[in-house]
Amino acid sequence: MTKRMHAAVLHGAQDLRLQERDVPSPGAGEARVAVEAVGLCGSDLHYYLDGRNGTNVLGEPAVLGHEIGGTVDETGPGTPDELVGHRVVVEPAVPCRTCPACVAGRYNLCPHSTCLGSPPADGGLTGYVTVPLAHLHPAPAGLAPAAVPTLEPLAVAVHALRRARFVPGQSVLVTGAGPVGLLVAQVARAWGAREVAISDVDPGRLQAARDLGIERVLLAEELDGLRVDRGLECSGSPGGLAGALAATTPGGRVVLVGTMPAEDSATALSLVQRYEVDLVGTFRYAASFPMAVDLVARGAVEVSSLVTDRFPLSQVRDAFARAASGQGLKTVVDLTATDAA
Amino acid sequence: MTKRMHAAVLHGAQDLRLQERDVPSPGAGEARVAVEAVGLCGSDLHYYLDGRNGTNVLGEPAVLGHEIGGTVDETGPGTPDELVGHRVVVEPAVPCRTCPACVAGRYNLCPHSTCLGSPPADGGLTGYVTVPLAHLHPAPAGLAPAAVPTLEPLAVAVHALRRARFVPGQSVLVTGAGPVGLLVAQVARAWGAREVAISDVDPGRLQAARDLGIERVLLAEELDGLRVDRGLECSGSPGGLAGALAATTPGGRVVLVGTMPAEDSATALSLVQRYEVDLVGTFRYAASFPMAVDLVARGAVEVSSLVTDRFPLSQVRDAFARAASGQGLKTVVDLTATDAA
Amino acid sequence: MTKRMHAAVLHGAQDLRLQERDVPSPGAGEARVAVEAVGLCGSDLHYYLDGRNGTNVLGEPAVLGHEIGGTVDETGPGTPDELVGHRVVVEPAVPCRTCPACVAGRYNLCPHSTCLGSPPADGGLTGYVTVPLAHLHPAPAGLAPAAVPTLEPLAVAVHALRRARFVPGQSVLVTGAGPVGLLVAQVARAWGAREVAISDVDPGRLQAARDLGIERVLLAEELDGLRVDRGLECSGSPGGLAGALAATTPGGRVVLVGTMPAEDSATALSLVQRYEVDLVGTFRYAASFPMAVDLVARGAVEVSSLVTDRFPLSQVRDAFARAASGQGLKTVVDLTATDAA
Amino acid sequence: MTKRMHAAVLHGAQDLRLQERDVPSPGAGEARVAVEAVGLCGSDLHYYLDGRNGTNVLGEPAVLGHEIGGTVDETGPGTPDELVGHRVVVEPAVPCRTCPACVAGRYNLCPHSTCLGSPPADGGLTGYVTVPLAHLHPAPAGLAPAAVPTLEPLAVAVHALRRARFVPGQSVLVTGAGPVGLLVAQVARAWGAREVAISDVDPGRLQAARDLGIERVLLAEELDGLRVDRGLECSGSPGGLAGALAATTPGGRVVLVGTMPAEDSATALSLVQRYEVDLVGTFRYAASFPMAVDLVARGAVEVSSLVTDRFPLSQVRDAFARAASGQGLKTVVDLTATDAA
Repeated sequence: MTKRMHAAVLHGAQDLRLQERDVPSPGAGEARVAVEAVGLCGSDLHYYLDGRNGTNVLGEPAVLGHEIGGTVDETGPGTPDELVGHRVVVEPAVPCRTCPACVAGRYNLCPHSTCLGSPPADGGLTGYVTVPLAHLHPAPAGLAPAAVPTLEPLAVAVHALRRARFVPGQSVLVTGAGPVGLLVAQVARAWGAREVAISDVDPGRLQAARDLGIERVLLAEELDGLRVDRGLECSGSPGGLAGALAATTPGGRVVLVGTMPAEDSATALSLVQRYEVDLVGTFRYAASFPMAVDLVARGAVEVSSLVTDRFPLSQVRDAFARAASGQGLKTVVDLTATDAA
Repeated sequence: MTKRMHAAVLHGAQDLRLQERDVPSPGAGEARVAVEAVGLCGSDLHYYLDGRNGTNVLGEPAVLGHEIGGTVDETGPGTPDELVGHRVVVEPAVPCRTCPACVAGRYNLCPHSTCLGSPPADGGLTGYVTVPLAHLHPAPAGLAPAAVPTLEPLAVAVHALRRARFVPGQSVLVTGAGPVGLLVAQVARAWGAREVAISDVDPGRLQAARDLGIERVLLAEELDGLRVDRGLECSGSPGGLAGALAATTPGGRVVLVGTMPAEDSATALSLVQRYEVDLVGTFRYAASFPMAVDLVARGAVEVSSLVTDRFPLSQVRDAFARAASGQGLKTVVDLTATDAA
Repeated sequence: MTKRMHAAVLHGAQDLRLQERDVPSPGAGEARVAVEAVGLCGSDLHYYLDGRNGTNVLGEPAVLGHEIGGTVDETGPGTPDELVGHRVVVEPAVPCRTCPACVAGRYNLCPHSTCLGSPPADGGLTGYVTVPLAHLHPAPAGLAPAAVPTLEPLAVAVHALRRARFVPGQSVLVTGAGPVGLLVAQVARAWGAREVAISDVDPGRLQAARDLGIERVLLAEELDGLRVDRGLECSGSPGGLAGALAATTPGGRVVLVGTMPAEDSATALSLVQRYEVDLVGTFRYAASFPMAVDLVARGAVEVSSLVTDRFPLSQVRDAFARAASGQGLKTVVDLTATDAA
Repeated sequence: MTKRMHAAVLHGAQDLRLQERDVPSPGAGEARVAVEAVGLCGSDLHYYLDGRNGTNVLGEPAVLGHEIGGTVDETGPGTPDELVGHRVVVEPAVPCRTCPACVAGRYNLCPHSTCLGSPPADGGLTGYVTVPLAHLHPAPAGLAPAAVPTLEPLAVAVHALRRARFVPGQSVLVTGAGPVGLLVAQVARAWGAREVAISDVDPGRLQAARDLGIERVLLAEELDGLRVDRGLECSGSPGGLAGALAATTPGGRVVLVGTMPAEDSATALSLVQRYEVDLVGTFRYAASFPMAVDLVARGAVEVSSLVTDRFPLSQVRDAFARAASGQGLKTVVDLTATDAA
């Protein structure tokens, strides 16, 4: 008899239903992961609230969730099984591996990729997911199951600093003190930044940065006169970008990490031009999960304290409401609490 | 008795006067150049028409002209004199050579630099200029004196393609078919581009591109569906930038060569972010003149036909008027015709 | 009834036998190529003469040949068939695509790769081979079937110049005027080198370089005083390496393209150290075939004249003898002449 | 009356004499430094013992010493004097700043450079030296005067890791646990290396590495099976290089930091070739002193414990003898103790 599992299925904007589905079987080259925790991020919220994220519109009902931690349960036919029983984080975007982008090592830009939790592909807000073996990364020993999904935004942070062509000894400004900003700041510190500053418009959000020991914590209006080698824009706001561009030294680089509005945005292109400040983007990550895992394993980055809110799957709508409130840092749906619910 | 020379001195917007000045003497480490030809470019026009260029405002009366060709006439005390009698192009921006930008090889970003013809520093629209020896580059044999100043915008083009991280085998779109755009397209071809396309809003301006044998010549509205590795924005217009960003492949790079408006410009930052298309600027050039000279010397780039209009110094106001008309490609003030005038 | 084909099977040093084998069927994701021409290269010769190539020793009998041109004949189940009927060159080394080297875009270094014609894997000296679709590259229109295999050493040359971090405007010395050296020199020229020099110990071998129009053709003893930005060592001899290292400018780069002896080789490491001349290797190629195809398609590189000797499969031993003689440039086994033999 | 000072003047191999000289006056753009401490390094020893270092032979009598700390005492005419009274480390090699190497940011390769303490140029083993202002770097507050010269080998270490293209998250093997090796290991750790290993043939020398908390400390014979991203060869021995090459992963990079013998050295070029392990050198440093100062100022690198031996200038011969003994780590000549002597 096929086993069944619960899934949080999004049928339309703010129409999220708990439904039963068959537990999937892993194919060749795949493993099945018993999901333990799923973090909610901005793009999940966009789908939940508006039925779309940027230009990507929800069509058929789909399961959200791409920050996924769990334990490997079974592998497909002919597939090595050493991972069975191990706790892993899922790298959710699966590229084709043969197109020019993939072959050049930039597989995050593969035009043929699919991504767990990016509709129409189903994600992690359910009991089990199947994933290609190469997309499972062993979680650091001792990391609480609920914190494992934070390795996904940490991979975003790692990728962002690589896109920044950050090298040790440089100074960094992070605009936006949300979960990704806090992770970027920590990675910069772990990688030997000369100085790390972080700014936000909301004084309350800066407290977490102070608690993590980031050395310079600034309100957005205090950026005047700051001069850094690299700007990491993590606020998703034109104001954050303007602050990062103005603070970055000639010949430096500003990275868009926070999601900018899809429509044209006005910005200071004259700074890009006159001072050769490169403006570059980030889309997901490539070859970044192993580094994220290592940073946490060595204690160089602290992720546990970012998980401020936990809900069982049965209360997934409350989890989305909490995430939408802008309070707390990271909301996690705890699947191990599901059965009890 | 001190020799005297004529100079075209800008006293204010559209107030350009021919005046007499003493011929300068070269200092230690400098040479004096008898100016033979000066090209007019967009920034000269801005000073002439508005008394300012971007944020730089004309204060004291100044001599414009930073595209300067001539013949070395004398060197300063204790300064090697092998260049005396040789035709040279002047590299007009003189950096400090010891600040971090200079020491890192990005001397075009030196905050302490001065530039001949960038007020308050005097430029080439006069009989003689003095220049540090390292800022003189021997002109290719056989290049007509009036074409020597085009080596300056060619250095801009060389720098732009290096900022593009252009590598042979890539495809290129140049938006804007003015002098700089035509030079960028030619350099890309000489450097082994797989395909070079150039676009403009004005069908008339595309004829020069056809005459130079650029393989794909397109109206701005014909860019749909074009896909290139590198976009070189040489039109100075938000429309040109939009076209370049849309045509550039994920993971590619767009370079701002044409001068963007100083105020905030709206653009498709979502393309920068979602597809990791880098957006980078260019300011002047670093270590690019020797390459420019070599490209012309080997016949890999044709510059002579860009010089469509010539005026003696006595008619310098007519020269500016012609340049401001938008007709022709490059207007040159021919100083060797001065005496006759 | 299964179709049968001839294959040149190497059973041991100088023990090459023509045998019959079943024509293989392509699997999912694969295509079958009717082989038309196979070029012989140095590593084939090592296997043929000594039963080994470097540390790789022939075990079970195997079919050599990794420079393979042919026409796609059939594709596997569920595999797109647009390539059927098209002439292609085979990219023979098949990596795993998921290890760190592959994911970083350096799939030529994949420790799990197999390569057609590198024992124990069978190669192209037979009627048909099966190849993953992504490893077939359409041949340029108009290229003679016998010249199609030269696209493989041309991919080696492309990769070598990328490993050289060659950029247009640099000068290049190629030591060794064999087929690979002649291709490297041509690619450097097509990519906008300021100057291309090539040297060899054998005056006779330099004639081909002259015929291809390489601008500086030098005997090894004439290198004194030459100064280049990049050295491309294609002779496989310590003498060639010494010449390349001595000629390369401080801060330049020398690439080992020709195969060095497996034992320790003495060289001028003090030049590497004192002048920061990087010494780097090349192993096969990554993402280089499309560039090779494009260079020939655009007429930027001439390959046909490199094919100096052709033999039908029935005379494959004569082909190896010819290649071993050191005379001629590239010996090709012409499979289309097989039936007649 | 001109002030006089003592200087340790090398007249020939092992012929070092304390002599009186005039205190020099700083020229325009220069400052005078009252020397407080000079570290002795391998090249000083070569000159002292053999009258030569590699191909550079002592001609006229000269003052050695290029690891120089002191206090600025006076600046030349028209030269800013904010540094007067500050403790500084001297960057001893002075490039021309206008040649192609300088202009490209690789001023350590300037063919026109002179270097304090590299004969015929006099160095720091004397009371006062004059130095261009841009070659003085303020010492970190609180660093003992005798430890200031160690910032020079720390700049070597910084440059070595940049030449390694080291990026955070990589693993590193340092072969050779002398002062430079210990500094390289510390910088790699400060810059976020995933793992840092150091090896030496001498178990005694490894104790300092353990004391500094380097995580993996190995005898040379224990390297088997180690796999790192970057190899930093700091032993100056072919054995160290062989170990570094063998341990470095395909596609990795090995840097020659320790000085290799001037004659040809035999090494495993097949590893360079087959696995594309880059082999690169280091010569001095470029733009590395500010990073060195910052690393010490932030407490990220410990230098004081490297100074194991101190001698006054009057005992400079004993200092050389101690350095030549191979015992201790860094021998420093303490000029502040000179007067008493």
